[in-house]
Amino acid sequence: MLVNGKHYRTVWIEGKVVKAINQLLLPHYFSVVSIKTSKDTARAIKDMIVRGAGAIGAAAAYGVAQAVLEAKSFDHVKNAVQTLQSTRPTAQNLFAGIDYVLKAIKGLSLNEAKKIAVIKANEFADYDANSCKAIGEHGKKLIKNNSKILTHCNAGWLAFVDWGTALSPIYAAKRSGKKVFVYVDETRPACQGSRLTAWELYHEKIPHAIIADNAAAFYGKNIDMVIVGSDRIASNGDIANKIGTYEKAIIAKELGIPFYVAAPTTSIDLNCASGDKIPIEERSEDEVKCMFGMFRGKLTRIKIASPKSHALNPVFDVTPARYIKGIITEKGIIKASRGEIKKLLK
Amino acid sequence: MLVNGKHYRTVWIEGKVVKAINQLLLPHYFSVVSIKTSKDTARAIKDMIVRGAGAIGAAAAYGVAQAVLEAKSFDHVKNAVQTLQSTRPTAQNLFAGIDYVLKAIKGLSLNEAKKIAVIKANEFADYDANSCKAIGEHGKKLIKNNSKILTHCNAGWLAFVDWGTALSPIYAAKRSGKKVFVYVDETRPACQGSRLTAWELYHEKIPHAIIADNAAAFYGKNIDMVIVGSDRIASNGDIANKIGTYEKAIIAKELGIPFYVAAPTTSIDLNCASGDKIPIEERSEDEVKCMFGMFRGKLTRIKIASPKSHALNPVFDVTPARYIKGIITEKGIIKASRGEIKKLLK
Repeated sequence: MLVNGKHYRTVWIEGKVVKAINQLLLPHYFSVVSIKTSKDTARAIKDMIVRGAGAIGAAAAYGVAQAVLEAKSFDHVKNAVQTLQSTRPTAQNLFAGIDYVLKAIKGLSLNEAKKIAVIKANEFADYDANSCKAIGEHGKKLIKNNSKILTHCNAGWLAFVDWGTALSPIYAAKRSGKKVFVYVDETRPACQGSRLTAWELYHEKIPHAIIADNAAAFYGKNIDMVIVGSDRIASNGDIANKIGTYEKAIIAKELGIPFYVAAPTTSIDLNCASGDKIPIEERSEDEVKCMFGMFRGKLTRIKIASPKSHALNPVFDVTPARYIKGIITEKGIIKASRGEIKKLLK
Repeated sequence: MLVNGKHYRTVWIEGKVVKAINQLLLPHYFSVVSIKTSKDTARAIKDMIVRGAGAIGAAAAYGVAQAVLEAKSFDHVKNAVQTLQSTRPTAQNLFAGIDYVLKAIKGLSLNEAKKIAVIKANEFADYDANSCKAIGEHGKKLIKNNSKILTHCNAGWLAFVDWGTALSPIYAAKRSGKKVFVYVDETRPACQGSRLTAWELYHEKIPHAIIADNAAAFYGKNIDMVIVGSDRIASNGDIANKIGTYEKAIIAKELGIPFYVAAPTTSIDLNCASGDKIPIEERSEDEVKCMFGMFRGKLTRIKIASPKSHALNPVFDVTPARYIKGIITEKGIIKASRGEIKKLLK
């Protein structure tokens, strides 16, 4: 997508150098880091310079390709893979990206492997981008001209290689000449909405406004649809996504606003029977009690809450399938039901 | 209520000196300011050292009393009143506090006025505190032992002279030996929940946890009741309160949690037929895009959002009467209906 009018992906490779948008500095500074070794690529994933399911997967694939190019023996590749795997051990896509390249070079000589490793990593990144683009093409049909859309968290291109999921239909609708306005939930505690989604929309020149998460129902009468992403979809159509998604789904139901989930089919977990089986990560209370931002040109952390009080910080919640009007995937739009999910994946 | 084990009101008078908790420094520092002149009391209200409907009213009453004590002629009182009235012109209680003292000294000589001005200002402050205490006594009957309660914003004692409204039933329940646990909505954008409500509860030794506003539905299955305050109650039982209250009411309805509003009868506006007639204040987008807090011992403002994006910042919303299980007033608990409101005020 566009940054200052120029097209970027979140992560790509030039020769032996992995390039990535430094997401730690967004939205305050835009900068591209050059990562010269597979070891440093692993570090960039661990330190969250690269973040978001799709972007992590592609970065890991590029990390393996880099290791192959660096290697004097396959031992180096093996070590690099171990290092990459240990960076974000719960990120499903990390393993998919690594495996995609490893599978392609299996049984090859090192010289043969050096010829195709980058090609395969690029294939993996392209697959992510194309899959997100297809979500946009399907999803844009749901968006009428002059729509006002609410989104929560960041399921934009910054979390993938390009296009994103929840934002992809909005980008596709814009390119097909439709006018849209986006209400961007701030998405406390980590503020992915006001930091990342708003930044993406600004650079794509899509009219939008950041709102406190509390204000969604207030603007409800203006909102035509809600689109959110999903980290994991159970086989019955329940979805896990950023904390607050469930609240927005309840509000959408009460106010009669259609609520859509956009996610690639790789997010569907057929081994998970229903949403209550999805484990919910709780993170440090400091994410609630403190805040990161810019002060005099420097990233600074301030304390914002009653210092001796505790905070609870569940980072995901589960939205039951009955609140979801449809799931937008790269293969088409389906109802959030066991039957339609099964049919789609056949 | 208690601060470090000692009882405080938000504002009181000692001789000619008005004393107030400096709410600008909370929750990071607790300090009491000594305000020596009526002019400085007006300044303290304007600068929000004293904030919250009830506390502002009492501070204004004390400011008039101070002016009377300072006065060599009634001209000084008249000027002081004008200054006080201009501090927070939309605060209904400000005028009530001023008028209460003015009415009492009307027709008296300056010497006679000096004898009763402070007595009358104290009466006004006591009325606020007693009214809030009565809300607690009525409301505590709704709270079962071991209840888990959700509250939004700060309708605690810091907003009044003592006790508060939404928190008063919780304080009363605690004192009568009941165990309660409070989920404290952070309440973005101004974070009155994580800053003030959590601070109050900590000092009253009431178990509680701050949560991001997004997490209320996630904890819904644990929550036995919701209690919030109200800035204005329309004659049909619709209520205006801090942005996000409407969201919590919708969630409470969907999850079957009783939703209560606690407010003194002075918040009822019989001239307002329904909630859609209540004007909603919009404030600066900087409240959403920036954040105040402590950095290296100093109150600091940082930028937290996409710098070129805009934000919308409505600070109140309206919760329709049908979402409200009951309104807890100092005169008893009523249904949120035109009939019961009329009967209560007879």
